[in-house]
Amino acid sequence: MSQITAPDLEPGRVVADRDVALAYATDYSHGSTAPDDFLVVRARDRDDVVAVLEHAQAHRIPVVPQGARTSLCGAATALEGGIVLNVEALRSTRIEVDERYAVVGPGVNTAALKQAVAAEGLFYPPDPASSPMCTIGGNVATNAGGLCCVKYGVTADYVRGLEVVLAGGEAIRTGRRTAKGVAGLDLTGLFVGSEGQLGVVTEAVLKLVPAADAPLTALATFGSLEQVTRGLVALRADRHSPNLIEVLDHASLQLIQQVEDFGFPADAQAALLVQSDRPGHTAEDVQRYADLLTAAGAVEVAVADDPQEADALMAGRRALAPSFELKGPHFIEDVCVPVGRLGELIARAEELSARSGVDIVMSGHGGDGNLHPTVFYAEDVPGSRERAEEAFESLVDLALGMGGTITGEHGVGALKRQWLPRELGEAELARQRAIKAMFDPVGILNPGRPL
Amino acid sequence: MSQITAPDLEPGRVVADRDVALAYATDYSHGSTAPDDFLVVRARDRDDVVAVLEHAQAHRIPVVPQGARTSLCGAATALEGGIVLNVEALRSTRIEVDERYAVVGPGVNTAALKQAVAAEGLFYPPDPASSPMCTIGGNVATNAGGLCCVKYGVTADYVRGLEVVLAGGEAIRTGRRTAKGVAGLDLTGLFVGSEGQLGVVTEAVLKLVPAADAPLTALATFGSLEQVTRGLVALRADRHSPNLIEVLDHASLQLIQQVEDFGFPADAQAALLVQSDRPGHTAEDVQRYADLLTAAGAVEVAVADDPQEADALMAGRRALAPSFELKGPHFIEDVCVPVGRLGELIARAEELSARSGVDIVMSGHGGDGNLHPTVFYAEDVPGSRERAEEAFESLVDLALGMGGTITGEHGVGALKRQWLPRELGEAELARQRAIKAMFDPVGILNPGRPL
Ligand SMILES: Cc1cc2nc3c(=O)[nH]c(=O)nc-3n(C[C@H](O)[C@H](O)[C@H](O)COP(=O)(O)OP(=O)(O)OC[C@H]3O[C@@H](n4cnc5c(N)ncnc54)[C@H](O)[C@@H]3O)c2cc1C
Ligand SMILES: Cc1cc2nc3c(=O)[nH]c(=O)nc-3n(C[C@H](O)[C@H](O)[C@H](O)COP(=O)(O)OP(=O)(O)OC[C@H]3O[C@@H](n4cnc5c(N)ncnc54)[C@H](O)[C@@H]3O)c2cc1C
Repeated sequence: MSQITAPDLEPGRVVADRDVALAYATDYSHGSTAPDDFLVVRARDRDDVVAVLEHAQAHRIPVVPQGARTSLCGAATALEGGIVLNVEALRSTRIEVDERYAVVGPGVNTAALKQAVAAEGLFYPPDPASSPMCTIGGNVATNAGGLCCVKYGVTADYVRGLEVVLAGGEAIRTGRRTAKGVAGLDLTGLFVGSEGQLGVVTEAVLKLVPAADAPLTALATFGSLEQVTRGLVALRADRHSPNLIEVLDHASLQLIQQVEDFGFPADAQAALLVQSDRPGHTAEDVQRYADLLTAAGAVEVAVADDPQEADALMAGRRALAPSFELKGPHFIEDVCVPVGRLGELIARAEELSARSGVDIVMSGHGGDGNLHPTVFYAEDVPGSRERAEEAFESLVDLALGMGGTITGEHGVGALKRQWLPRELGEAELARQRAIKAMFDPVGILNPGRPL
Repeated sequence: MSQITAPDLEPGRVVADRDVALAYATDYSHGSTAPDDFLVVRARDRDDVVAVLEHAQAHRIPVVPQGARTSLCGAATALEGGIVLNVEALRSTRIEVDERYAVVGPGVNTAALKQAVAAEGLFYPPDPASSPMCTIGGNVATNAGGLCCVKYGVTADYVRGLEVVLAGGEAIRTGRRTAKGVAGLDLTGLFVGSEGQLGVVTEAVLKLVPAADAPLTALATFGSLEQVTRGLVALRADRHSPNLIEVLDHASLQLIQQVEDFGFPADAQAALLVQSDRPGHTAEDVQRYADLLTAAGAVEVAVADDPQEADALMAGRRALAPSFELKGPHFIEDVCVPVGRLGELIARAEELSARSGVDIVMSGHGGDGNLHPTVFYAEDVPGSRERAEEAFESLVDLALGMGGTITGEHGVGALKRQWLPRELGEAELARQRAIKAMFDPVGILNPGRPL
């Protein structure tokens, strides 16, 4: 790497204050720290992005494209130094109501976009739990998931086209604005989920759908994990898909109960939360889901009659993240397995926890088989962190052995890079690296991440 | 190109009979003819595909991957000679009911797969009108659309992963079997719609959804195209999406009436067909759609009360293709524009027809803005074919000028290649060609098609 210099930009683009710059050097991933030598550019428009990518390629300076830094896998830190190129200020938004799409800048906040389109009677489904903080550019670059994927799919399913600035500064447009189109290769899909390694997204054309209803919720507790799996399979077979199917294991329920008494019985092995947002039929749906879960063997099923009650049932799920913070240092992980093996994954994690003495809490988007194992350690106990890491490695093994993936939605980033060859195999990985090299021949874009 | 030779294969793979071979040299595209020098290999398994692609690369022989040859854009003909590699015999099918996916060979017939999954209470939505004839491999390679895209999306939305044999014979697997996954770049999407230019698909993992109900139908006729557009926009805004919205212009209705009297009034400017397949709510939906169309200004709206009546309403639409054959030689085209401009596109086509004296019939998947302009000519009239081609060129201009695409679903193939640079722009096209060159450095795969 050569010396880190900034391109010629209008005043104010390069962050001068070291403390402010430091805030841009790390993301939400566990243990991320700032490198010694880096620069932060806060782009105001596409020209700034072009200038940075021209300059960086000419001087072989690494560039980290950056949204709101909510990455949990270390994809947005100033890892190896270089230029952190933050695009949060690119916030244009245009909503085409009749054509049902929005054209947005990468810095648009996800929750804000959801609100803006809701005001037009439309719905932008992707809902990562980080929506109040994260950006559309980050969601596109990570192909973000969320709670409603089980019905609505992931970010990729809503991206019709992109404007991307490539290493060297050339801007290209991919995709289309029409509902359909098959002219040429699908480059849009290639950029979605590329974690800032192929180019910087400066505009996205996002598909919108008609608004749904405010969801109603059912909450079921189970005495065994086999019943949970049975319940999940039954819910997924229902002809009116739930818009949310979340699972909480025994350890999750216990942790949540420590924050506040949500009434989870002490012997519940797991709970499922399920919702319907189907226009005009939410009550009918959640009652049917409740019956399915009862038939699957649920001990207790609570059904919310109105949005307030539904929200109360979801409160327990929301208490989980704060309960992690109370319990202590942890990694949040993100494996995904076939739905029919989810109960088995949880059971094997419990065995692993018992055997290793490492606390592991299993929860997440059960309807997709996508769990976020949370693995705890004690900072003051020697070897504790290493044991937690080993336990986590065993979980990844387990998931891969079940035909699963190392990451359902958070991405690979710096933290899961070591497992990528195992999941993809060398043949596919080699092709992916060749594509990366084609778009970024000098290798300036987000080095040290997946590829 | 060097001399065309076949690799060492088991007996029977290479078609020896010249007449049989000729049947594999052309597709459904207008005016396709066989080249002088070509060979046909009917692969029986992946090893055959590997052997052909190894041999062809070593000897620089062009290879045309081929399914059922229903391409309308000349994507599957033995264009430049070389080896036609037909994979229709690769027909394995495995349905994972609980996980809601199927693993299928590329030669599986689309309608047969739809039936096989229906027998399990599941639904594979993509429904190109050619389903009784075409293959899943062809659908994947063209990202086929169909009638139900307006609700369910296109083939790409159902492909989770692929096995692809690359030029040179290396096989790679892309994607995943889990519901979600973001490990690495999305190579799956790159192969979908690549028209046989990046590799030969030897297996596809296809997402399935719960079965819908047998659809009910409403049929509305209109006195003006503005009303049609208004109707389309209203239907698309409905919170329960129709599973079909087809449009027929004045010329379509007149042609259909010549085949059989379906009762379309002589002064109807256009008709819309709309369906609901929503489990348990088809009757309620089509009545609501009918009311929306009446409010948009429809002259007459017929609503089917049962599947038989629904089918009767669709019969007019089905009579269109035979009516084309009766009328005379024609090209079937495939532009897609923003839905809000569909009425305008039809009106401009009518002006063009009046001005040029070329008969143009506009019909297709109105809900997506995807029309199939059918342009007629007379074989015995000098200059007639040229005038038809000019008229078609004007239609492409019109569609591009409206922010549309040169192909909504049929693909680029050999016939629309000349317009691709205009739609994509040189910057994106250059990147697409570079990707093609990366996967196929010698350039053996389906040369003369889009890239
Ligand atoms: C509390 C919490 C809950 C979360 N819940 C979910 C969840 O439910 N589902 C989920 O999928 N994720 C979740 N995440 C992870 C994270 O929020 C997502 O990955 C999100 O998409 C990142 O968006 P961001 O704007 O913060 O991007 P950043 O973290 O800044 O960047 C993420 C990646 O995208 C790249 N990038 C950012 N902007 C651009 C751009 N314009 N062009 C090119 N590359 C770019 C970066 O280089 C990096 O590789 C959660 C995180 C937190 C902290
Ligand atoms: C009557 C009729 C109606 C039609 N209706 C529709 C419609 O509604 N929607 C629509 O989208 N299309 C439609 N089409 C066009 C056509 O049917 C589709 O493009 C279909 O997907 C082609 O499938 P096939 O098996 O016939 O492929 P082919 O025509 O044999 O090949 C098409 C392309 O795919 C490639 N290919 C085929 N198999 C493979 C493989 N295994 N690996 C790699 N590449 C491969 C070929 O090289 C070629 O580029 C219609 C065609 C007809 C004749």
